[in-house]
Amino acid sequence: MEKDILVLQETDLFRNLSIEQIKTVLGICRKVKFSEHEIIMKEGDVGDSLYIILEGTVEVIKSLVISDLGEDDYREALKNKVFTKIDEKSHAVFGEIALLEECKRTATIRAVTDCIFYEIKKDDFLRLMETDSISGCKILLNLARVVSARLRKADEDTIKLTTVLSIVLRESPS
Amino acid sequence: MEKDILVLQETDLFRNLSIEQIKTVLGICRKVKFSEHEIIMKEGDVGDSLYIILEGTVEVIKSLVISDLGEDDYREALKNKVFTKIDEKSHAVFGEIALLEECKRTATIRAVTDCIFYEIKKDDFLRLMETDSISGCKILLNLARVVSARLRKADEDTIKLTTVLSIVLRESPS
Repeated sequence: MEKDILVLQETDLFRNLSIEQIKTVLGICRKVKFSEHEIIMKEGDVGDSLYIILEGTVEVIKSLVISDLGEDDYREALKNKVFTKIDEKSHAVFGEIALLEECKRTATIRAVTDCIFYEIKKDDFLRLMETDSISGCKILLNLARVVSARLRKADEDTIKLTTVLSIVLRESPS
Repeated sequence: MEKDILVLQETDLFRNLSIEQIKTVLGICRKVKFSEHEIIMKEGDVGDSLYIILEGTVEVIKSLVISDLGEDDYREALKNKVFTKIDEKSHAVFGEIALLEECKRTATIRAVTDCIFYEIKKDDFLRLMETDSISGCKILLNLARVVSARLRKADEDTIKLTTVLSIVLRESPS
């Protein structure tokens, strides 16, 4: 219990919460296990829960290009993905946007080793916001900041890509 | 007053708030006027307030490419920007990420006609979250959803751009 409180306090999502408030959050956390190679969430699937890594290492796999390919093109498709490895030391939270609204997962998360996560369901989260609005406010402020940091990063990526594209198009023969 | 309550209730940010809760928000709103052609916020500047359009039309100007240009390149730079016109019927909110953290404006907003806005300062907003956490929760949930919708759009743009770039690079002679 003590260890789990510390883990949650280290995440971006539950930062600034008191021990009492973390205990309320723990009330809606469910421990789930995934074996090596198992898929925790799949890009494109609709999800309704977030995951906090407690033990193990995962791989984040994200498409770089639009793909609508047959089985034969699988190797080609893999070339167009990015992979990042994340372990429990990161205190990473996955799928947090699912707490806000029903939407498709934007990346695939796959267990590299056996893993243990905390899972929080959207409905439980929204109920907590209603019953404990002081914790709710803090968590939502953190969540909004996490999403806004990712938006800033995505905006920068868009500008970089448009810049590269404009250079490539200018240099290629017409 | 009645009209202002209705305007706020129509925005994405203050959706689902009761009339009493909207009145609390109005307590931290300050009416500000901008003349035709005046800049409301400038891309790259650090801001600490959001704006809700009440009267008039504005233009949103956003860089498409990284630009670090001299005066002579101004016309070229303008080619690399996108313009969108928005009027009061949209009930648009600008600069909402400034309520979450100190960060650079991601677009320039310029008055096309004389305009009236509500301005909300970050510090007043964060104080409201603390004193009225029930309204705070609702607003933060709305805000997080607005930011997450923009993130989804930005992620889609990134994938589209990478796809175009991969096609262009494949087709151009090596």
